[in-house]
Amino acid sequence: MNQLANDRFLRALRREAVDRTPVWIMRQAGRYLPEYRATRQRAGDFLTLCKTPDLACEVTLQPLDRFPLDAAILFSDILTIPDAMGLGLTLDEGVGPRFTRPIHEVTQIAQLGVPDPERDLRYVMDAVRLIKRELHGRVPLIGFAGSPWTLATYMIEGGGGDRDFKRAKQWVYAQPVELHRLLGIVTSAVIEYLRAQRAAGVDALMIFDTWGGALAAGAYREFSLDYMARIIEALGDAVPTILFTKGGGAWLEHIAATGCSAVGCDWTVDLGEARRRIGDRCAVQGNLDPAVLRAPIPAIEREVAATLAAYGKGPGHVFNLGHGITPDIDPTHVAALVAAVQRGI
Amino acid sequence: MNQLANDRFLRALRREAVDRTPVWIMRQAGRYLPEYRATRQRAGDFLTLCKTPDLACEVTLQPLDRFPLDAAILFSDILTIPDAMGLGLTLDEGVGPRFTRPIHEVTQIAQLGVPDPERDLRYVMDAVRLIKRELHGRVPLIGFAGSPWTLATYMIEGGGGDRDFKRAKQWVYAQPVELHRLLGIVTSAVIEYLRAQRAAGVDALMIFDTWGGALAAGAYREFSLDYMARIIEALGDAVPTILFTKGGGAWLEHIAATGCSAVGCDWTVDLGEARRRIGDRCAVQGNLDPAVLRAPIPAIEREVAATLAAYGKGPGHVFNLGHGITPDIDPTHVAALVAAVQRGI
Repeated sequence: MNQLANDRFLRALRREAVDRTPVWIMRQAGRYLPEYRATRQRAGDFLTLCKTPDLACEVTLQPLDRFPLDAAILFSDILTIPDAMGLGLTLDEGVGPRFTRPIHEVTQIAQLGVPDPERDLRYVMDAVRLIKRELHGRVPLIGFAGSPWTLATYMIEGGGGDRDFKRAKQWVYAQPVELHRLLGIVTSAVIEYLRAQRAAGVDALMIFDTWGGALAAGAYREFSLDYMARIIEALGDAVPTILFTKGGGAWLEHIAATGCSAVGCDWTVDLGEARRRIGDRCAVQGNLDPAVLRAPIPAIEREVAATLAAYGKGPGHVFNLGHGITPDIDPTHVAALVAAVQRGI
Repeated sequence: MNQLANDRFLRALRREAVDRTPVWIMRQAGRYLPEYRATRQRAGDFLTLCKTPDLACEVTLQPLDRFPLDAAILFSDILTIPDAMGLGLTLDEGVGPRFTRPIHEVTQIAQLGVPDPERDLRYVMDAVRLIKRELHGRVPLIGFAGSPWTLATYMIEGGGGDRDFKRAKQWVYAQPVELHRLLGIVTSAVIEYLRAQRAAGVDALMIFDTWGGALAAGAYREFSLDYMARIIEALGDAVPTILFTKGGGAWLEHIAATGCSAVGCDWTVDLGEARRRIGDRCAVQGNLDPAVLRAPIPAIEREVAATLAAYGKGPGHVFNLGHGITPDIDPTHVAALVAAVQRGI
């Protein structure tokens, strides 16, 4: 059974009353922690760290031993799915993710299969089971996947970080039928992957739509949001879901309409306005600018209070950054952030 | 006197009836045009091109000779102001703008003066006067400046393109008083500069807030929007103004509340939603994704029609891209875009 000592995070996702606003931090298991860097060094490289359940479990738990966070998040990468599809992922520091066999021809789509999570992504499911066991019900565990559009962007661009997404947008405007075919396969893969994570024990699921914000409004709905809505529908009510489109501040109502449990907001969104726009439909997660963590501690405390005040009273807020924490942050500043959220307004 | 043969653009900014939606293109005088590349080669480098009124006039007029555009925009750069303040601008292709003397110490602020436009930025005013003469009233001429926040970002970062704006955000959160002092001086400089452009003959003014979208909602209002509002107020009703914050889709109501004539929208905004959110307060400019121009012409025509349809009937729309045109675009695709706007829905 799944008895949790601290279910504040899950209660907030259901918009139920909580004693205080729950908090976790995107990329909380990461390079800003010296213990993470030590484990990673033992692993040799990032991908080995992802693919070794013992080590993935170890780094998942590290931030919980330092800070009184209200949720753990599976240590993994959104690109495990295209890797399992055979695109050949490499993740070198400084270079970013690259695929050795990106999708450059339409004919390649027919060769893509939907991975069987327990066979092709077994290391992820084993990590989930191990982490759940090691957590002993301290806090809930969040599983995740990239959005179909975000995964397709990486698969088409192949890495290298073109900020304009020239190749992927060429598919949007010049071969939309083929892009829909690709997105359909990726969506099936994401659904299977998230269902398997759920079966393996995660308590909530988050979809990271890192590059949805690069799309025009109409293209976003057609090529990103609609596929995320299909995933939410396929998952049903069995597990709470968080949908996060970076740069999606103009589309919050549409994101909420997918039926997700919570809308993730980046820092460009005023949480009070987000709440008014979304209404009672779902919870809100976010949204301190990660840059605040470089400021002196009194400034961090002031900005945390301002973020809590922007959301206001009442249930439905999960405190987080508006994007992942960066490697240059001093862990004592993270401790100050978490303490400030715990104190409240 | 200022008799214009085509005042469609100015009428749309005033939300008056027009026979068809006016169109111009951000960075319409640019590297995608072979005639521009030829003039630039003669100039030697970009900054010389900006600083030589004859050549700036020549490239300003080039796109008008190719396409039936409804406005010209002064060929210049937003960084002329910090250059005139003595920061030492260099603009090398591939590297982007850099300052040889960026603002890294608070003590440097006291040394900054407000440039006298007719003395320190004479080449810009001379270019405006020359372009107005050479236009013979064909279409209105747009003058422009960078927003104080955007200029301050470049002045503090010094160039190099840190996507996270670490240094500038450090000022936001760790030394806001000093940042306000810097922004105050830059705002005075922008006001003087835009007033001088107006006196030299421009028919409308645009403020480019290229990096406002990097800020958190509250910080945007405090460090970018408030200063743009001061500029709009200082300019009064003498000249129509367009305010464009890239990535500002979540803040359109606030931008409209400055009293600007038009809100520039990037492509993440649905123009119908923008219109509903802004109401009758001001016109809307935008917002085709520049990536569309890489698609085949039928796709360009479809997306232009969708953009016009999103805004809908009635006055107050100036068609444009959602950001500047990129150097790799085929000019025949631009011709197709302009023709599609002229045909209408």
